[in-house]
Amino acid sequence: MPASLERRISEAADLVTVALDALLPRADGPEQRLTEAMRYAALGPGKRLRPFFALETGKMFDLPERPVLRAACALECIHAYSLVHDDLPCMDDDDVRRGRPTVHIEYDEATAVLTGDALQTAAFEILAHPDTHPDGNVRAELVRRLAISSGAQGMAGGQMIDILGVREDLGGVARMQRLKTGALIAYAFEIPLIMAHAQEAERHALLGFAQDLGLAYQIVDDVLDAEGDPEAMGKATGGKDAAMGKANYVTLLGLDAAKERVELLAEQTRAHLDGFGERADVLRASVDFVLGRRN
Amino acid sequence: MPASLERRISEAADLVTVALDALLPRADGPEQRLTEAMRYAALGPGKRLRPFFALETGKMFDLPERPVLRAACALECIHAYSLVHDDLPCMDDDDVRRGRPTVHIEYDEATAVLTGDALQTAAFEILAHPDTHPDGNVRAELVRRLAISSGAQGMAGGQMIDILGVREDLGGVARMQRLKTGALIAYAFEIPLIMAHAQEAERHALLGFAQDLGLAYQIVDDVLDAEGDPEAMGKATGGKDAAMGKANYVTLLGLDAAKERVELLAEQTRAHLDGFGERADVLRASVDFVLGRRN
Repeated sequence: MPASLERRISEAADLVTVALDALLPRADGPEQRLTEAMRYAALGPGKRLRPFFALETGKMFDLPERPVLRAACALECIHAYSLVHDDLPCMDDDDVRRGRPTVHIEYDEATAVLTGDALQTAAFEILAHPDTHPDGNVRAELVRRLAISSGAQGMAGGQMIDILGVREDLGGVARMQRLKTGALIAYAFEIPLIMAHAQEAERHALLGFAQDLGLAYQIVDDVLDAEGDPEAMGKATGGKDAAMGKANYVTLLGLDAAKERVELLAEQTRAHLDGFGERADVLRASVDFVLGRRN
Repeated sequence: MPASLERRISEAADLVTVALDALLPRADGPEQRLTEAMRYAALGPGKRLRPFFALETGKMFDLPERPVLRAACALECIHAYSLVHDDLPCMDDDDVRRGRPTVHIEYDEATAVLTGDALQTAAFEILAHPDTHPDGNVRAELVRRLAISSGAQGMAGGQMIDILGVREDLGGVARMQRLKTGALIAYAFEIPLIMAHAQEAERHALLGFAQDLGLAYQIVDDVLDAEGDPEAMGKATGGKDAAMGKANYVTLLGLDAAKERVELLAEQTRAHLDGFGERADVLRASVDFVLGRRN
């Protein structure tokens, strides 16, 4: 991995954190507890890979940075809301996230529910604001696509499938992943695609890239869950899925075959970029970085 | 109250229920549990007063019905999501809503959290769809205003204040009401105001109407909480706020003074409509109906 890639990713993360800090609401009254919890959830440590992909793809299309950055912040609000609600006692019941107490532990359950709710709302408020794009049709399409990616037929639907635990084969696991995490990864590419009024072929290639990368990323996650240590992951691991009787890529394929599949998918992921030539060098290089993650 | 008003309100409610049924997502996979719970929450009994106000105000401005109806459905999704989350054990812990088991009782807590989440998302998806309005700027403004009304500086912020119970005087109670319920009532009028590109004076008058009506409605709610019987209300009553040590208009003013204030506010509410002449007759007549509600 080129040293410059790691710097690019960390610079993008800083950019997003600073922008989010400016965009998230502040309050003076007792509802300050809510706006503080929103900041706790959204401004904590995180690699912010989705915003990185949005920003890099924006550069491929020569888009100005500010609109892409605002939309990437909205995407990050949705991601943060989903983590806060997924961690709730009635969902995955996780006490630790990225090495810090989860929101319902640091605050309380009611505050955590409201924090997720208000982070979701903030995402749509940011997208719809005229500063995000001068063209109202673009803003509305950004809203519509984010809603589709994160609602009952996207992320929330995937989480429903996940907590029901109803998946016995690879097809079921793949569908769950596509809805629960794949749709939101794809939205990182939708942002520049919508703003650039991209051609169908470009759209097809980049969404294919997103889909294969998201799937490979999930398999890496399952591998880390099976063999990773909790400290490096910043959350509980050690075969948590297996212990809960949930099928995943490792329980279904075995560890070695799962790792092999990651390699094959990495190649397939990069192949989607063939038509973009040098413009896609950063995206191309990022595949190994993302899949080589140790936490 | 003219008989025709009651019919108008019930016809508007039917219109909204049918439209919502068509707009809410359906699913074939295991996430069907989620889409069913969304329907359970959003299509159940309800007077749908907010959509009624949006539709009637749309008629005042000679707007076509379909765009207003779609936006009113989005508003109703936000209202439904807020009820599902407010009823959760970690919030108000209510088992019954409008005479039926609440979503976390009928399904389970995790499903209820996801149901509220996905209903919120559905609201923004409906608003952003080209069918809601041909002008992208109007769609984006509808999204932005709904987000402001329902987020940390609106409904969610008000709910945070409510569960913290930090309000000792009328000012605090009024501010909580304005955020928690007032902002969403006002949005019913924002829909036609945005679509009609209304003048500042019209906007000021109708949002004043909404604010005073919302406040009067809350006081009626507090009166019913203190003296109503649970069966008529379809939920637990009998001084629930007082029992939980929460201040409200009745605990602060006393029952008689609270009722008197409703009368004064009703007059003040109607006065906002003076500039609209006969066009506002239905809105004018609806004030007594809304405030005379027995459940």
